[in-house]
Amino acid sequence: MATIKDIADRLGISASAVSKGLNGASDISEELRNMVLETAVELGYSTKRSKKENLRSLAIFVENIEYESESDFGYDIILGFKQNAFKNKWAVDVIPITPAMQLEEKYDTYMLKNGYSGAFVVGLTLHDEWMKQFEKTTIPTALFDNKISKNPNVTYVGTDNYEGIDLAIEHLAELGHKKIAFLNGELHSMVSEQRQDAYSLSLKKHNLVADKKLTAFGYYMAGSAKDHVPNFLENGATAILCGNDLIAMGVIAECEVRNYKIPEDISVIGFDDLPVAEEIGLTTIKQDRLELGKCGYVSLAAIIQHIAISRTLMRPTFMERKTTAECKK
Amino acid sequence: MATIKDIADRLGISASAVSKGLNGASDISEELRNMVLETAVELGYSTKRSKKENLRSLAIFVENIEYESESDFGYDIILGFKQNAFKNKWAVDVIPITPAMQLEEKYDTYMLKNGYSGAFVVGLTLHDEWMKQFEKTTIPTALFDNKISKNPNVTYVGTDNYEGIDLAIEHLAELGHKKIAFLNGELHSMVSEQRQDAYSLSLKKHNLVADKKLTAFGYYMAGSAKDHVPNFLENGATAILCGNDLIAMGVIAECEVRNYKIPEDISVIGFDDLPVAEEIGLTTIKQDRLELGKCGYVSLAAIIQHIAISRTLMRPTFMERKTTAECKK
Repeated sequence: MATIKDIADRLGISASAVSKGLNGASDISEELRNMVLETAVELGYSTKRSKKENLRSLAIFVENIEYESESDFGYDIILGFKQNAFKNKWAVDVIPITPAMQLEEKYDTYMLKNGYSGAFVVGLTLHDEWMKQFEKTTIPTALFDNKISKNPNVTYVGTDNYEGIDLAIEHLAELGHKKIAFLNGELHSMVSEQRQDAYSLSLKKHNLVADKKLTAFGYYMAGSAKDHVPNFLENGATAILCGNDLIAMGVIAECEVRNYKIPEDISVIGFDDLPVAEEIGLTTIKQDRLELGKCGYVSLAAIIQHIAISRTLMRPTFMERKTTAECKK
Repeated sequence: MATIKDIADRLGISASAVSKGLNGASDISEELRNMVLETAVELGYSTKRSKKENLRSLAIFVENIEYESESDFGYDIILGFKQNAFKNKWAVDVIPITPAMQLEEKYDTYMLKNGYSGAFVVGLTLHDEWMKQFEKTTIPTALFDNKISKNPNVTYVGTDNYEGIDLAIEHLAELGHKKIAFLNGELHSMVSEQRQDAYSLSLKKHNLVADKKLTAFGYYMAGSAKDHVPNFLENGATAILCGNDLIAMGVIAECEVRNYKIPEDISVIGFDDLPVAEEIGLTTIKQDRLELGKCGYVSLAAIIQHIAISRTLMRPTFMERKTTAECKK
């Protein structure tokens, strides 16, 4: 592993100037500081050894998901992570990120500059710039719902989407549904890809025929139901499986506007089990978000200790409530 | 969850007789004891609440693998599990099992009768009787290298076989090999199925053509090389990937008997990185068996606390040594 002297030699400057650059001292230029940081990243310098025990801190990066209120999808994930991290005496910063920020700032440089020993990354899409950088990162990184091949510094935590979708399809098949539509989430996400694949596999397993007219992507927004539900209904859907509970709420509203009763005419299943699902009696697939957050910490702590856990999946739970019923057609 | 009274009511006997049955007291008949135990299992009675803190114990069941000497595949797995279990004040019994025993004794009954709070199960094949019973078991159970769908009481711990096989094929493809044979392990195992699938996917990814004449199953025994290596050589293989290090040793011996030099004429890659692999300079895919054992405990402990971890995979590491070289053909 690279030392401060290696960085100094490479740049032809003194070790003390390198230290100042790494520690963000005010008496060196911003330009020199950036050179020091970039060279440190390039040489694989690790910040860990220079951190004092009582200054250890972790970052949670969040994009594309809501997390500030208890009813938000990300709330419990972040809470669970923090609970475990605080128990183990880490400070934790929650940092919202954007695609623009990822283009401006390299992941490893950002982490080194800010002295984070590791990160938990929630909500990135497959197109995000940092997703590419994770393939080579030397910083311990736990990804929620994203995976990276062959890099022992990165680990993946999520729900078993194959099992989740199969629980829903199995339930609908047992109720006699044959035309099961799927309004999936964001197109460019690993989770949506897995669920789309799981939907096809599960229909096949239950001897049901997949129909392209019965699938679409809803971008995790209730409003997206308007664009697709009319089409599903025209094509004879008797049940609609949704990429999350918000989409399911939009679907229910859209069906009711068109005088389809839930669950008498159309069965609807959500995903996640947000607090609102219980309030409105939505049948859904529960992701245990508090435990997922806790697992995120456990996996990250393992990676920090060079225990190369590649993947930790949790089982979803099927929550049968009031929005599914026997198919009458 | 069922209570002692529920069992007593079902059988029409006293609660004290049920207690005696559950605790193995000597003053009730063996027949009555078995009835109590079977009814307890049927009603989903859990032994945990009746165990005192200082009597907590876990079982490790082992079949089909060697584990008694440091050079054996199972040694570190069991050691890692025990290290973590002892730290958390569990007693651990290691119990060799056979197909016959599994037919005689139901898994849940065995666990309840012997007062185990959970088990780590290593080495079972897909045909094993207990594998069927795990689908419905109410006992916390961690399986090494086997998975069960939809039962939150069972969890799966293993190495990411897809990544392991891809690391090997990638290395061979970079060395210019096009005819890569695969002498896989036991036919009826989940791991061999995953690796066979991974082999096909990885060849495709590297624009190589799969050839059925270049694949066979070796049952994890060095001796199996004799049956398949001549055929691989006749069909133009320049590299042989093996299901474990023991098979690889057999393959090397068999090649050398036929005047093929390793690695000049034939490249050979093992799997596991047993101590012998380093001794003989075998290029192989390392499974970190000590950490796998530790993960086995961590996952089992999670299941016992009703945290439904479905799967924990560890990354394999590619160990390049002396048995692979550039393809000259």
